[in-house]
Amino acid sequence: MSELIRLAHGFGGRLTQDLLDQIILPALSGKDGHAVTLDAAVLPDLLPPVVVSTDSFTITPRFFPGGDIGKLAVVGTINDVAMMGACPQYMSLGLIIEEGFAFDELRTIMASIGRVCRETGVRIVTGDTKVVEKGTVDGLFLNTTGFGTRAFGPVGPELIREGDVLLVSGTIGDHGAAILNAREKLGFDGTLASDCAPLHELVAEVAAAVGGALHALRDPTRGGLAATLNEFAQDTGLQIVLVEEKLPIRAAVASFIEVLGLDPLPLANEGKALLFVAPDAAAAALAAMQKHIYGREAAIIGRVEKAPRRGRVVMETAIGARRVIEMPIEAGLPRIC
Amino acid sequence: MSELIRLAHGFGGRLTQDLLDQIILPALSGKDGHAVTLDAAVLPDLLPPVVVSTDSFTITPRFFPGGDIGKLAVVGTINDVAMMGACPQYMSLGLIIEEGFAFDELRTIMASIGRVCRETGVRIVTGDTKVVEKGTVDGLFLNTTGFGTRAFGPVGPELIREGDVLLVSGTIGDHGAAILNAREKLGFDGTLASDCAPLHELVAEVAAAVGGALHALRDPTRGGLAATLNEFAQDTGLQIVLVEEKLPIRAAVASFIEVLGLDPLPLANEGKALLFVAPDAAAAALAAMQKHIYGREAAIIGRVEKAPRRGRVVMETAIGARRVIEMPIEAGLPRIC
Repeated sequence: MSELIRLAHGFGGRLTQDLLDQIILPALSGKDGHAVTLDAAVLPDLLPPVVVSTDSFTITPRFFPGGDIGKLAVVGTINDVAMMGACPQYMSLGLIIEEGFAFDELRTIMASIGRVCRETGVRIVTGDTKVVEKGTVDGLFLNTTGFGTRAFGPVGPELIREGDVLLVSGTIGDHGAAILNAREKLGFDGTLASDCAPLHELVAEVAAAVGGALHALRDPTRGGLAATLNEFAQDTGLQIVLVEEKLPIRAAVASFIEVLGLDPLPLANEGKALLFVAPDAAAAALAAMQKHIYGREAAIIGRVEKAPRRGRVVMETAIGARRVIEMPIEAGLPRIC
Repeated sequence: MSELIRLAHGFGGRLTQDLLDQIILPALSGKDGHAVTLDAAVLPDLLPPVVVSTDSFTITPRFFPGGDIGKLAVVGTINDVAMMGACPQYMSLGLIIEEGFAFDELRTIMASIGRVCRETGVRIVTGDTKVVEKGTVDGLFLNTTGFGTRAFGPVGPELIREGDVLLVSGTIGDHGAAILNAREKLGFDGTLASDCAPLHELVAEVAAAVGGALHALRDPTRGGLAATLNEFAQDTGLQIVLVEEKLPIRAAVASFIEVLGLDPLPLANEGKALLFVAPDAAAAALAAMQKHIYGREAAIIGRVEKAPRRGRVVMETAIGARRVIEMPIEAGLPRIC
């Protein structure tokens, strides 16, 4: 018997309870057997200052090399919270499911969510499940909102100074390239994989190593380095200089983008952080990252200078030329997260 | 020039910034001009115990008598947080928008969100905007996650006792009837309107009046009184007795359900609370509600008894007969929230 989601699974009655009891809650129960409450949760030990972040996930395909929509939904929100200095402790989970969606696929995605939660110590404490008519959503969309007590910082663009060093925690463009390859069935070799990974430990270790010398950090997801660095340039009014030959790019990604004529800078990443660090702490920050499993290929990739007129991002090429990196406009890569 | 949402508005680049700057952020800025940060927010004054709740909103039609999807998204989450004893202070907002959606409609919905936030003092502090290809979402889906410091309680089904009195804060079935009428274009008279309203003040006033005698409360949304009371019966193992002739039903709703042969108990409500109160505090709880604008038609509608075998809900009719009210299975009313 192949089981499919029916509209009544979202009605709030008996079938909603069945869906929760049989598929959703068992996947989320931790080793301590905590139950997920339905409408709301009380968090007595969430202490101030609280960091919060929300994200919706509409990615297609839902399964891709390196992850799936469930893993991405947990990791994406962990990373947004981590970039503000918090170790995410709690999360809410909203599901919007299309009528006719297969129970088996939902079970697989929920298992993936549960696995990442157990690995990272994040607890899903409240949720919501909606079922909508066939044709009114593309399979499954997820929303996660994460909360944690800030463990380091404050950090933010207002702390970035001329002379700061820019680091990246590893290779760039992996997620964008893997999703484009899978989605468009381009058939490039199987080594293209999403970098989808939780970064809360990595950035906490950098903060422990360099303290207040860690000025600002952000994960370059949608729009990649091009979008994130332009946001920093706008917010600070400074010039961010990227050194082209220092950018770490996996060989498979490099040949993929070369063949397709793509620029790696706007490609999405789902397991990378950009960090602005005071110059005398850059080596220690780099060493802290390279010791971590998700930072082995970390690199110093640029610096911050006074801007000629207003904030901008420039790339310094191997022959010493400079070109301006614009805020990207078009995606080329729809629905990558 | 009619402006429409393009995929690039969700890419994270320049058009995403335009969408945020021109439509989303202006609607949300409060009188104190606070800006909404993009990826995450730090909340220094969110003190424990924190109550959190999340909800996705997929309602069709998006505009209906008594509200719209924007108002509903804020009010729905306010109410879930309020039922756990917290005045919601902060909220996150996730938007999933279909390519081709009209700017004007989005502007109207954002204005509605901003208005409810200003009226209730809720601050939207972080958000996320995704745009998906035409045909992969039905126009616009919203997610809100709300958080606040618990102001009264604890409350919960574990505190309900035999002899407790059951109250409802007003007429039942208004939202479900209004949405069904609008969605199916049934053409019933124009007095059918959603009861969509924020209940945090109302329930806080009951708590102030009766203190710990307020044992448990919940808003009967999807699945209506039938689903919510059955959840309480299961959780407590007690018998909940509803007195049919005490149920407050607006005349327009009564004739609507009579013509269509509908049962009012599974109809959704979006501005009502069910409260379990110790018997000697029931009159004070009723008086506190009736003083509030959203509780004028509050009523005592039942009581809690020892169950014969396991928890269940029964309705006592005018002639003294009793029938069991089952947990509803099918909706009849898809996408009411």
